Amino acid sequence: MDIRKESLKKHYEWNGKIEVISRCSIEDRNDLSLAYTPGVAEPCLEIQKDIDKSYDLTRRNNLVAVITDGTAVLGLGDIGPEAGMPVMEGKCALFKTFADVDAFPICVRSKDVDEIVRTIYLISGSFGGINLEDISAPRCFEIEKKLKEICDIPVFHDDQHGTAIVLAAALINALKIVKKDISEVRIVINGAGSAGCAIAKHLLNLGAKDIIMADRFGILSRDDDSLNEAHKEMALLTNHSRMKGTLADAIAGADVFIGVSAPNIVSEEMVASMANDSIVFPMANPTPEIMPDLAKKAGARIVGTGRSDFPNQINNVLAFPGIFRGALDCRASCINEEMKVATSYALASLISDEDLSEENIIAPALDKRVAKVVAEAVIEAAKKTGVARI
Amino acid sequence: MDIRKESLKKHYEWNGKIEVISRCSIEDRNDLSLAYTPGVAEPCLEIQKDIDKSYDLTRRNNLVAVITDGTAVLGLGDIGPEAGMPVMEGKCALFKTFADVDAFPICVRSKDVDEIVRTIYLISGSFGGINLEDISAPRCFEIEKKLKEICDIPVFHDDQHGTAIVLAAALINALKIVKKDISEVRIVINGAGSAGCAIAKHLLNLGAKDIIMADRFGILSRDDDSLNEAHKEMALLTNHSRMKGTLADAIAGADVFIGVSAPNIVSEEMVASMANDSIVFPMANPTPEIMPDLAKKAGARIVGTGRSDFPNQINNVLAFPGIFRGALDCRASCINEEMKVATSYALASLISDEDLSEENIIAPALDKRVAKVVAEAVIEAAKKTGVARI
Repeated sequence: MDIRKESLKKHYEWNGKIEVISRCSIEDRNDLSLAYTPGVAEPCLEIQKDIDKSYDLTRRNNLVAVITDGTAVLGLGDIGPEAGMPVMEGKCALFKTFADVDAFPICVRSKDVDEIVRTIYLISGSFGGINLEDISAPRCFEIEKKLKEICDIPVFHDDQHGTAIVLAAALINALKIVKKDISEVRIVINGAGSAGCAIAKHLLNLGAKDIIMADRFGILSRDDDSLNEAHKEMALLTNHSRMKGTLADAIAGADVFIGVSAPNIVSEEMVASMANDSIVFPMANPTPEIMPDLAKKAGARIVGTGRSDFPNQINNVLAFPGIFRGALDCRASCINEEMKVATSYALASLISDEDLSEENIIAPALDKRVAKVVAEAVIEAAKKTGVARI
Repeated sequence: MDIRKESLKKHYEWNGKIEVISRCSIEDRNDLSLAYTPGVAEPCLEIQKDIDKSYDLTRRNNLVAVITDGTAVLGLGDIGPEAGMPVMEGKCALFKTFADVDAFPICVRSKDVDEIVRTIYLISGSFGGINLEDISAPRCFEIEKKLKEICDIPVFHDDQHGTAIVLAAALINALKIVKKDISEVRIVINGAGSAGCAIAKHLLNLGAKDIIMADRFGILSRDDDSLNEAHKEMALLTNHSRMKGTLADAIAGADVFIGVSAPNIVSEEMVASMANDSIVFPMANPTPEIMPDLAKKAGARIVGTGRSDFPNQINNVLAFPGIFRGALDCRASCINEEMKVATSYALASLISDEDLSEENIIAPALDKRVAKVVAEAVIEAAKKTGVARI
């Protein structure tokens, strides 16, 4: 059966992929007076005296909200808040399965940046973290930025940072194989949406110096007055030689291609025009910018995609469960750049030098060791940067 | 050990009284592609085509938000949103335990009526129902009214309606014992907050004709220009003889006293001044308006309180789990007056004529039969009034 049809059938059976259960048994009067009135007055008063006690006395310590406005759901676009919920619930199921994080899905019926920010802020005291999901660019940048300014809990837009972190881990290992240094390679990123911009910034944090970004209108250049705010910022951070032109112009001679754009837009000729030992990550899903076998045939040495049926799958699930596990465990006030960088190195380290090969640069998505290793790295970085609160 | 100290200790152990779990197993690649990408695109598109499918394909069908602003938590007053969360989590635990309803606690960091209404509306697509909790009067009336106007799912302020419904059930049975008709008795309600106002309205719906309300300033009368909007409305619905004076004036000759006010404010003399076969429900918690033994000594024939250590406990837990169970099961668009009235009769019917006695007018709070019986009554009333959607 077709996977999407089968998924629909399973969704009817599941009747929701998450469930809220009670952690306390309420069988008799005594139970009732401990879990509820009159006993419950005491934990309430403790939190009133010291709001940090809400982490000990309620579920905040392990609880993340997974929030969307439904404007950029998978590759489906703006399908509406309620229609995005199967993805949010799936994400919550992954949080629980991979890192024992309680995650709760919420959709917001608004497309207004300030209204979304205000709504999320107003309910943020109920949670220990906020995972934003499937919100369209450039609104997602502003929403995340504003929320980070006003919230005292971690706010993380997974479509941006999750992808960037895992991609970077794969790139770190790929560069080991080809013996090139990240500070010396030319990296071309095609697609300047939420993922593309976050990847560029994250690779800069990892030491990349020569990044060219392109989108369907061509190379992002600071000389182009038609760019929106987010793209202007990216143009200033990248393309220092002020190159103009098409993706084909950018890719010629490049060491690394990263695609977060559209199916089949990279030709064999383009890959053939890259430098020796080229690394190609066509991550458009489900159909990549170029199929792995064609990229290989055209001369790419290492290829990774978003798909599970080819080697080297770049999958966010390697990052977000462990990142929030770590952030919750040390009660981090935010997820900062150092924590993201640490996650990329931790993920890369899961492939030992002996196991490292062209077909094995990143841990498999379902590897259960991953969340723990990531969480430890996140906690260490949080402590080093002074954002851990316990 | 003192119950509140013990409760605090248990709360530290529980580390949160609710937990979000996954209903789908994600063990291998195939699981991942069914619960998440790429398969999940299909249920998303189904909901986009028909938003009602969100009830089949996500957890909305069984999910209620328990929402507070923390302004009237138990008898503790305005202790803040986060400090109210132990009560909200307790409520959620009760929902799950008594009616298998998934309930999720949310606190809102605002005291502004319109902002609270807007916030709840914007996230309401994530739920199948909204249970408001511990919001101070008269704001709670306006918040509930406005939400009912704009939401397409049931909105229910339990502090108002839950209390009214259970109290009414007890009163129905008490009146059977004393062989008085609800349309002929004089009922005095002391306390004109959310519970008192809701009780008065609900008893009017049940056929009561002669209700006098009082608060700490005395009897509510339509001739009093100092009343707020909510109290003006109540004064017009009650006290048709335009009585003025104190609680003592109101209670003299009354058949029924209902207290939702403050400890120890009803004297033995007041109870003694009531009509023969008087019914006294002093429900202030934990210390009633008059202790049951004193009320009995002063001549009350039937006494019920909010406490579990005396006979005839009026406890909301008899109502809200079954009400939402019924509302969710028939996908009711609201919880209307007919559904509330039906719940009171259903609760009353749980005590058979043989079992009915002065000390046994209402089912015990932990009776597991209750939610099912209530849900059935709610569904029947919803269907009769055309608000059931399946």
